[in-house]
Amino acid sequence: MIKKGKLLNFTSIFRFGYPFHTNATLIKLEESNLMKTNTVKFFDVEIGDKSEIILTYKLNKKDIVYGLGENLGGLNKRGKKYRLFANDDPLHTPEKEALYGSHPFLIIDGKKSFGFFIDYPSEILFDIGFTDFDTLKITILKAEFDLYIFDSENKKDIIKEYLQLTGTPYIPPKWAFGFQQSRWSYYDSKAVQEVANSFRKKDIPCDAIYLDIDYMDSYKVFTVDDKKFPDFTNLVSQLKEDGFKLIPIIDPGVKVEEGYDIYEEGKDKGYFCKKQDGTDFIGTVWPGQTNFPDFINPEVRKWWGNLYKKIVDCGVEGFWNDMNEPAIFFTPDGLSGFKEEYEKIKDNPNVGFDFFKIKDKVLGISNRGEDYKNFYHNANGKKICHYDLHNLYGFNMCLATSEGFKTFQPNKRYFLLSRSSYAGLHRFCAIWMGDNQSWWEHMLGHIKMLISLNMCGFFYTGADVGGFGGNSSPEMVIRWMQLGAFTPLYRNHSALGTRQQEPYAFDSDTEDIIRNIIKFRYALIPYIYSEFMRSVIELSPFISALAFNFSDDTSKNIEDQFMFGSSLMVCPIYTPNTRGRFVYLPDVKWLKWNVSKYDERKFKVFNKGSYFIDTKLDEIPVFLKENTLILMGKPSNYVGEKETKELSVIGFVTDRASFSYYDDDGISNSYNDGKFSTINIIVEKKDDKYKIHAKVEETDNFKTKIKKLKFEIYDDKGNIFIKSIDLK
Amino acid sequence: MIKKGKLLNFTSIFRFGYPFHTNATLIKLEESNLMKTNTVKFFDVEIGDKSEIILTYKLNKKDIVYGLGENLGGLNKRGKKYRLFANDDPLHTPEKEALYGSHPFLIIDGKKSFGFFIDYPSEILFDIGFTDFDTLKITILKAEFDLYIFDSENKKDIIKEYLQLTGTPYIPPKWAFGFQQSRWSYYDSKAVQEVANSFRKKDIPCDAIYLDIDYMDSYKVFTVDDKKFPDFTNLVSQLKEDGFKLIPIIDPGVKVEEGYDIYEEGKDKGYFCKKQDGTDFIGTVWPGQTNFPDFINPEVRKWWGNLYKKIVDCGVEGFWNDMNEPAIFFTPDGLSGFKEEYEKIKDNPNVGFDFFKIKDKVLGISNRGEDYKNFYHNANGKKICHYDLHNLYGFNMCLATSEGFKTFQPNKRYFLLSRSSYAGLHRFCAIWMGDNQSWWEHMLGHIKMLISLNMCGFFYTGADVGGFGGNSSPEMVIRWMQLGAFTPLYRNHSALGTRQQEPYAFDSDTEDIIRNIIKFRYALIPYIYSEFMRSVIELSPFISALAFNFSDDTSKNIEDQFMFGSSLMVCPIYTPNTRGRFVYLPDVKWLKWNVSKYDERKFKVFNKGSYFIDTKLDEIPVFLKENTLILMGKPSNYVGEKETKELSVIGFVTDRASFSYYDDDGISNSYNDGKFSTINIIVEKKDDKYKIHAKVEETDNFKTKIKKLKFEIYDDKGNIFIKSIDLK
Repeated sequence: MIKKGKLLNFTSIFRFGYPFHTNATLIKLEESNLMKTNTVKFFDVEIGDKSEIILTYKLNKKDIVYGLGENLGGLNKRGKKYRLFANDDPLHTPEKEALYGSHPFLIIDGKKSFGFFIDYPSEILFDIGFTDFDTLKITILKAEFDLYIFDSENKKDIIKEYLQLTGTPYIPPKWAFGFQQSRWSYYDSKAVQEVANSFRKKDIPCDAIYLDIDYMDSYKVFTVDDKKFPDFTNLVSQLKEDGFKLIPIIDPGVKVEEGYDIYEEGKDKGYFCKKQDGTDFIGTVWPGQTNFPDFINPEVRKWWGNLYKKIVDCGVEGFWNDMNEPAIFFTPDGLSGFKEEYEKIKDNPNVGFDFFKIKDKVLGISNRGEDYKNFYHNANGKKICHYDLHNLYGFNMCLATSEGFKTFQPNKRYFLLSRSSYAGLHRFCAIWMGDNQSWWEHMLGHIKMLISLNMCGFFYTGADVGGFGGNSSPEMVIRWMQLGAFTPLYRNHSALGTRQQEPYAFDSDTEDIIRNIIKFRYALIPYIYSEFMRSVIELSPFISALAFNFSDDTSKNIEDQFMFGSSLMVCPIYTPNTRGRFVYLPDVKWLKWNVSKYDERKFKVFNKGSYFIDTKLDEIPVFLKENTLILMGKPSNYVGEKETKELSVIGFVTDRASFSYYDDDGISNSYNDGKFSTINIIVEKKDDKYKIHAKVEETDNFKTKIKKLKFEIYDDKGNIFIKSIDLK
Repeated sequence: MIKKGKLLNFTSIFRFGYPFHTNATLIKLEESNLMKTNTVKFFDVEIGDKSEIILTYKLNKKDIVYGLGENLGGLNKRGKKYRLFANDDPLHTPEKEALYGSHPFLIIDGKKSFGFFIDYPSEILFDIGFTDFDTLKITILKAEFDLYIFDSENKKDIIKEYLQLTGTPYIPPKWAFGFQQSRWSYYDSKAVQEVANSFRKKDIPCDAIYLDIDYMDSYKVFTVDDKKFPDFTNLVSQLKEDGFKLIPIIDPGVKVEEGYDIYEEGKDKGYFCKKQDGTDFIGTVWPGQTNFPDFINPEVRKWWGNLYKKIVDCGVEGFWNDMNEPAIFFTPDGLSGFKEEYEKIKDNPNVGFDFFKIKDKVLGISNRGEDYKNFYHNANGKKICHYDLHNLYGFNMCLATSEGFKTFQPNKRYFLLSRSSYAGLHRFCAIWMGDNQSWWEHMLGHIKMLISLNMCGFFYTGADVGGFGGNSSPEMVIRWMQLGAFTPLYRNHSALGTRQQEPYAFDSDTEDIIRNIIKFRYALIPYIYSEFMRSVIELSPFISALAFNFSDDTSKNIEDQFMFGSSLMVCPIYTPNTRGRFVYLPDVKWLKWNVSKYDERKFKVFNKGSYFIDTKLDEIPVFLKENTLILMGKPSNYVGEKETKELSVIGFVTDRASFSYYDDDGISNSYNDGKFSTINIIVEKKDDKYKIHAKVEETDNFKTKIKKLKFEIYDDKGNIFIKSIDLK
């Protein structure tokens, strides 16, 4: 049965059956507000053999399909199949269909443009012009979902309406825009201290150091191994003195071990997911046999959220929730299936072809659909198979975390990353892009996912800089650190057994280049933070595709350049041994800036067009858009180390440019209550002369610290106009 | 011990120890001609702990390193590690170090330029600025090799001298420049006939159809399953009538099966590789347990070469030698190693971390180094461990095949592809690029390997068009078929269980586009064949990098465009949903030709520079170089179907252009005896008028069939000059 309703400005809802309320949207619709209907706008609806719903849409030859948040393939998703079913896949090769998150929000841009969101928490298959070039085919496992259709021709309006529906993006504390260093693992206090000391000694800014799974006692969640970390609280506070936050990892799996308090409590209170027979479901993950908390149950979420407090009380201000698809290495069932196959061939060397069957069994033993079908959630007393709510597991784990934080620090922002996610998670949590590889190809994927994730509200995101799996070359780490400088989450992370890839892990030339780009990043934080906050307030992606900003045909073809805020276009180098790259400059004039040092200006004016931009190893091509401004401060060891009293306003102005500089305390949520300041800046050019306006807007609640603005304004003739003004 | 000698024009040899004579070079040096030395030109020499030899060279910041033939990474090999040890790897992800061949020929291009070739048939490790950006480090397993150094600044001269050393490239029959269709597998006569009929019915040219492993009886080499192929000879001859060659696969492994004649004979005569204890070495491959012929032994090669005769006598004119690294799925030893690991965990669900050990065991069970150390060759009575000659296995299998062919059809060219190869194999055999995937990334890899393989004499080569593993989208097959039209070996091939990807496997629009590009290819064969033969005669790569032809800095950065012969630059589209691509045009003017149909001209003059070239789905951007000509005929169903009496000469002439059109019978080796003709064509522009010369050079042995040349000459002002001339 389909029912229809109207929502917001140009959004309709089509309800199939009686969907589970996912919490993806902020809106809880009354059934009584919906009208029965037989047709769905834009789509043909069919019911498949297994009562799955098949939506099809006839694509025009030139239609572009954007969306799906965290997934592989192009920015234009056409020509590939996708499967939205949270999956811990450690090898993101191009044919893969599922990563860790499910973000069923898409925009068709073409002959007819519109957006749509399918609020369904289990498997959705997308065949976007793969089987048939002109057909978009969507298969939704069960007729129990809401389909929202955003009927607007304007891509930014569609995104805005999607975010009105699903919520304002998460805002991390300001320090989260600093550089962050991670590794699986910094094994003990000493190793962590060494990392911290190395950064400070080597004069490389850094705001956070991560703890991967090895800080725990036998991988028991919410424990700290007190042999390796004999005084954890002291470590946290020492690091804090040096300007570092320590970010421990949290896994959802609870080790089955008698006497382990969390296991005992979870078991006693029935907080773990259960099998059909009512016993606790068991899967093997890092700790060995584990149980999986039933985060669908609000009582469990409350319990889980409070468990973080023990670590927060040690001074910790952020976490990363990992393995929450949930990843399962294997179950007893999976293992015996493999055993069976193996027994058939183990003594028969004459198997030939059949050999590949056991290979497939081993490769398919983890994260099996069959296992996800074998356990159940308690949804307000109703038993629901995990498979049917699979994509909500990470979402609800993080909801628990955020609810916890809101309880024990109501007005303070928390830092929270998740690996798994569902649409709407962007309201209360950030994600990173999971286990990428040290492949050049994954740098390009990083760029595309930045854009796609920003589209669906994940403004604060990033990939593991340098690549997680595999070994990085110095050049790759340089290039990725340059790209990372222009992503909100700027985190270098690498896997066990791979080459160290900290900024100082290579030769001194490499270290110098990386130090400079990190310093540039810190100097740019006034612009980044201000633009990020503006994006959140305006519900407009912080990072966006050229095609979202320019309407010419070529812009639609560019998937490896992006707007970073509204003034800067970033054109990363993502190929090895490169002396430059092709760049497309749409619409207006651009001021080329091959960025290497924060206080160096390598500017050149370019008209719109296509160019091969020569680029040295220590440079990343960035372009300042005509008639825009950016604001820069000076680098510091960590965000907030020094009070910024003076900012540089750098502009490329041929006519008129304005910028509204936003700032707040960076820590609390009081910006909601007006505790912020803005400086409205206007630069106008008339008769070859510049006129400058700057006006502070602030309340008694929050006063800006900025006393002085230093203007550096470039025109298109190679002239530079310099002026300093004192504020007020 | 190192000895030194002088060779050719600017080539020196440095001999380490007493190398095995690999047959890579044509030169057999007398030890007495060599002088003892302590130093090696350019390189520092070190002996490692395991008596391996380590050569190091200090790279300049801007040095480019070309070479290594078939391998991953960039055209510039810097920034990666490579391992030359023939490996059947089905998943060519970017971090992989070894593919199927070993081509240890490199050119350093930079501050100091030179080339070098390491003639060593076992493991060589290259760390080309990966660990340390400025260090090229080469590790050769044993001090038993020849190092040839080509001390010239000129890249093309270095290649020429390398080819003088290792031999003139293999020339296939002319039909091999036609399109070829493969699939694992066309299972029976009916399936093969259906493929052939489809091509003819649908008016899509094609010259060859391949048989993969399933044509054999239980994968027994040199058998044909007579249930599936009841009258094999008749099938071959029927196909031939329709203009198709049938190309069966040949694997080296001989099934262990009593009564199977080849097994019995090989066993009786001691032709198989032996273990230390003298028993025949056994590994499991497609047929189950197999023995491996000892191709190092000339007697075995002779035997093996003759085995092809049975199939040649059925009318077959070509083969592909597969699995000849040799690939080994597993050995009894390997299996028991896995078993041990598995026993440890199989009943312990609390393994956590250790689970990955069994995964690694399964993934590492095939093609294990330990297995290659467990069998031996008989080299003129001397027992040599397979590991030490590993890279020669495929080489010698194909040497056997070619020796066989030369015996039973001395003056007729044979068609022979190999998967594994070693330097020098290019003299008597072609290779394809192994088991790629239907990944866009592998199209780019295809382009780079074309260039690198041409550098080391593999002029006739190509990758599996459409990708072997995984599923192709229609768009991917279109784009790859467009690229393939500009590669010498133009073969569409795909794996078991993947989507069909024959030119007619998709919708009719796709089929039309593919038909047109194949027809274009056939029309271009006069140019291709002529330029190919010129390349062979001149020992100059048929396909070459921009950097080999133009000396500007930007050309050195372009790895995704290539010269196809000396007149055409090809700029393939290798990304999805693409409406165009960036193109760099060096040095001169270029005539843009967005190729879609052979008789369509979409020309536009471009000056040197960088451009975004709009490209429709049915187009591939190709550029005709200023002051060059190409020759085109008309498409046909297969090469040689119709006698070509008339050719079009298409030129972009602003001053003077010439072309020497070569032709011969395309079948025999009599071109060696002067049985060929040339037409020397000159187009000159003076005072806005064109002057045309065309002169036939032929002997009584071979007379050209061309009676007429139709000139279509374009200038840089948009003018076209048309003229037909009759020859003689």
